[in-house]
Amino acid sequence: MCSPEIAKVVSARIASEGLPKFTRRNLLKMGGSAAAGLAFASFASPARRAAAHGDTGFEVVDLSHVFGPNMPVYTLGEEPTRETYLSVEENGYFIQYWTLYEHVGTHCDFPAHFVADGETVDNYDAAHLASRAVVINIAEKAAADPNAMLEVADIEAWEAANGEIPEGAVVFMNSGWASRWPTDDYRNADADGVQNYPGFSGEAVAWLIENRAINGIGVDTLSLDPGNSTTFDAHYAVCGGGIYGVENAANLDALEGAANAIVVIGIPRWEGSGGGPTRVLALIGS
Amino acid sequence: MCSPEIAKVVSARIASEGLPKFTRRNLLKMGGSAAAGLAFASFASPARRAAAHGDTGFEVVDLSHVFGPNMPVYTLGEEPTRETYLSVEENGYFIQYWTLYEHVGTHCDFPAHFVADGETVDNYDAAHLASRAVVINIAEKAAADPNAMLEVADIEAWEAANGEIPEGAVVFMNSGWASRWPTDDYRNADADGVQNYPGFSGEAVAWLIENRAINGIGVDTLSLDPGNSTTFDAHYAVCGGGIYGVENAANLDALEGAANAIVVIGIPRWEGSGGGPTRVLALIGS
Repeated sequence: MCSPEIAKVVSARIASEGLPKFTRRNLLKMGGSAAAGLAFASFASPARRAAAHGDTGFEVVDLSHVFGPNMPVYTLGEEPTRETYLSVEENGYFIQYWTLYEHVGTHCDFPAHFVADGETVDNYDAAHLASRAVVINIAEKAAADPNAMLEVADIEAWEAANGEIPEGAVVFMNSGWASRWPTDDYRNADADGVQNYPGFSGEAVAWLIENRAINGIGVDTLSLDPGNSTTFDAHYAVCGGGIYGVENAANLDALEGAANAIVVIGIPRWEGSGGGPTRVLALIGS
Repeated sequence: MCSPEIAKVVSARIASEGLPKFTRRNLLKMGGSAAAGLAFASFASPARRAAAHGDTGFEVVDLSHVFGPNMPVYTLGEEPTRETYLSVEENGYFIQYWTLYEHVGTHCDFPAHFVADGETVDNYDAAHLASRAVVINIAEKAAADPNAMLEVADIEAWEAANGEIPEGAVVFMNSGWASRWPTDDYRNADADGVQNYPGFSGEAVAWLIENRAINGIGVDTLSLDPGNSTTFDAHYAVCGGGIYGVENAANLDALEGAANAIVVIGIPRWEGSGGGPTRVLALIGS
């Protein structure tokens, strides 16, 4: 919002009453609302907010990193920028201005990212954005080899212990890499500029699409493929297969072992896009 | 959808490794996956994708408009821009470059939008991003008065018919305005530039925070307040109250009457932000 009217209103309020000091829910002594007789002082306290956890019957686990200019990115120079455009102090309300390349931060790859006539974000079937969540841990082999891949054998081992991956799942690789975010060890580039971190093998993705009809995959690294990949098999399998891939997922440890976890891909409907910034939330049933 | 794209990708790889120019990432030798023997041709058919609906036990309803340069915006000139930065044809993969002001399109207002030390998006408690959904329809009075407000009386009438609004809900105003998107009738400005569309009254928001401990509100218009507001009571009540507000929600008709609807606020963790582009998805239980 930005209009001469509101700026005028707020300036007038500040002129007559000074800059408002809002504590968290200690509300609004400002003109319009106070004049309307709103009993702001009796608003619920932060204690109310804690009580609201679990209102839906689900625990919420945030699988997203903060999106900002200092994130590790696959291609240096593609970091987003943000600046204050309007501020509460000067303009009455706060708006930032951003520039961004789509494939940075916690985000998704959709088919159009690698396939010329592939499906775009804006019209992708939303039914596939809420999915059963599966997390396969390869931290042990990732500790031994940074470019380790989640292979078909890892899927088979997971299924042997946990049962068959349900149709329409999102299968996450948990390599332990999220704990390196946002340091240089996350991108982990060597002297030649080659990045080194785990990813999916193309075979594993193809196997999941063929045999388990998954909705998507996810990784806790900068790329669906391992950092040193030059063939991008996982990207081609995902985009060619018509599914999506989550990159830079966070907090996957909290999902491991959770039965009945639903993952929701909160990607704005970026027009004409092959992917973009996304909130990834998991809802864990009791 | 998979097979034609897959075939194209594979044949492109087989045809010539020099065809795509991966100038930016300087990568991508084609042929990796094909050489690895992936059975792309046998990937699941579109029938698989339809079957995936309801995998979670929930129907997904998309409450979001497409986010792009031609959207109606509150303040003219704050439309986002997008341009192709890399393309599959020229570079091997597709990325767009965006500029955007935060408060346009289907998006959320968080406390910092109007409150100098208010909570920002990036660290807002994610537990409040999944909520029970309530939709209150005021289309009849909005048809008579474009600046109609959802008032306490409308909440009382809704509760008389449906029972008490649960704690931690998001309460949506359905004014019927979404059907005007994206035409000029959505912003509905008069000759003096005054916008005209429905919104919440400040009293109604304050009542909901005090008495029902809501997580947020939502509107199917450009602003939480009616278009002709000069005092922005609903904005102050939302931001001062520590809750959030969804603007430009779509498709609320599909939620009306749905018991057990959960609304998920898919807002990327925009750093330091008072709001920004958001995917709003509803999960409707059976």
